[in-house]
Amino acid sequence: MKQSTHSLEITTSGQGLYEFTSTVVQWVSRQQIHTGLLTVFCRHTSASLLIQENADPTVRTDIKAYFDRIAPENFPYHHDSEGPDDMPAHLKTALTQVQLSIPLMEGRLALGTWQGIYLFEHRVRPHRREIVLHLIGE
Amino acid sequence: MKQSTHSLEITTSGQGLYEFTSTVVQWVSRQQIHTGLLTVFCRHTSASLLIQENADPTVRTDIKAYFDRIAPENFPYHHDSEGPDDMPAHLKTALTQVQLSIPLMEGRLALGTWQGIYLFEHRVRPHRREIVLHLIGE
Amino acid sequence: MKQSTHSLEITTSGQGLYEFTSTVVQWVSRQQIHTGLLTVFCRHTSASLLIQENADPTVRTDIKAYFDRIAPENFPYHHDSEGPDDMPAHLKTALTQVQLSIPLMEGRLALGTWQGIYLFEHRVRPHRREIVLHLIGE
Repeated sequence: MKQSTHSLEITTSGQGLYEFTSTVVQWVSRQQIHTGLLTVFCRHTSASLLIQENADPTVRTDIKAYFDRIAPENFPYHHDSEGPDDMPAHLKTALTQVQLSIPLMEGRLALGTWQGIYLFEHRVRPHRREIVLHLIGE
Repeated sequence: MKQSTHSLEITTSGQGLYEFTSTVVQWVSRQQIHTGLLTVFCRHTSASLLIQENADPTVRTDIKAYFDRIAPENFPYHHDSEGPDDMPAHLKTALTQVQLSIPLMEGRLALGTWQGIYLFEHRVRPHRREIVLHLIGE
Repeated sequence: MKQSTHSLEITTSGQGLYEFTSTVVQWVSRQQIHTGLLTVFCRHTSASLLIQENADPTVRTDIKAYFDRIAPENFPYHHDSEGPDDMPAHLKTALTQVQLSIPLMEGRLALGTWQGIYLFEHRVRPHRREIVLHLIGE
């Protein structure tokens, strides 16, 4: 049994879903692990992770618009020190997740045909987001 | 330290929560692992996983009705190619999760007394849903 | 490769976010594992886990108020046997999560600077909540 870890950075330019499935798949394939468990961890509280459809891009448009509706900027939050997108960003992170684990079987991640791995950026201004990967297996 | 993986299929006939705790518990018990970590992964973007109360069935009725209210069909989504339940299914999946990990201690999953493992089907028509199990431990 | 497990109890006195990052960090540091994966599991269906900002406490005030708004007590739920906070507690648990996994790198959890680990208590009356920790690595 062995382990590998890796840190990667995703540069964002505004709110929305940024796919990084291929980065993850490529890193995993270099670890020479046949069966195992991959964990993806987002080190932030105003950006999160989502596994979602990687085909029709309007799914992402609708997802972004939906979270804007259910966690609106136009509300008298107590915490607003970093602007109107600050507190909605924390709420959207709470409603999604900062960690995903995906089994690795026969040398391939168990992602379904339509599943892509996305960083969900909730802040308007550009950010550098740190993602940690951990793989255990053999 | 050893690992096991398993794929299982859950046949759904409409929206709602389908419990499969006993299937998982039985598979885990056959792996002869005393201490470890079980991961349950759902290979879809329109069905998800939930750990919820396994006692009073009205909890599931209320959960289903609640997600129908907060992710309604009656909305002008951009993505509607597969019908009015298509985009709400993606939203409900984003609001819940496609992966759960549960520690195994003294040969038993660490599920609480009232916790059951459910597939949350978000599509109206019948589907076959693929679930992957991964167990690591010894 | 080795594993450790641990059970801990968090006593709650009403709804809100209870940080227990330091308890987790201290337990992890005693396991003498340099690289690995920590899993935190909450054994309940009316309390959940959240990684959120550990700096400005008004973030937690806003998070609690937000979940009270989107899963209100004032609704004709079918399941209300334990009082008006009963069903909203299940819904808030479904919207967040009962499990978190965090990679361990160079002897430290990969938590970001502003990330704290919280128990999110959704019931009004005092409760004792059981949390299970599982660490695998070497």
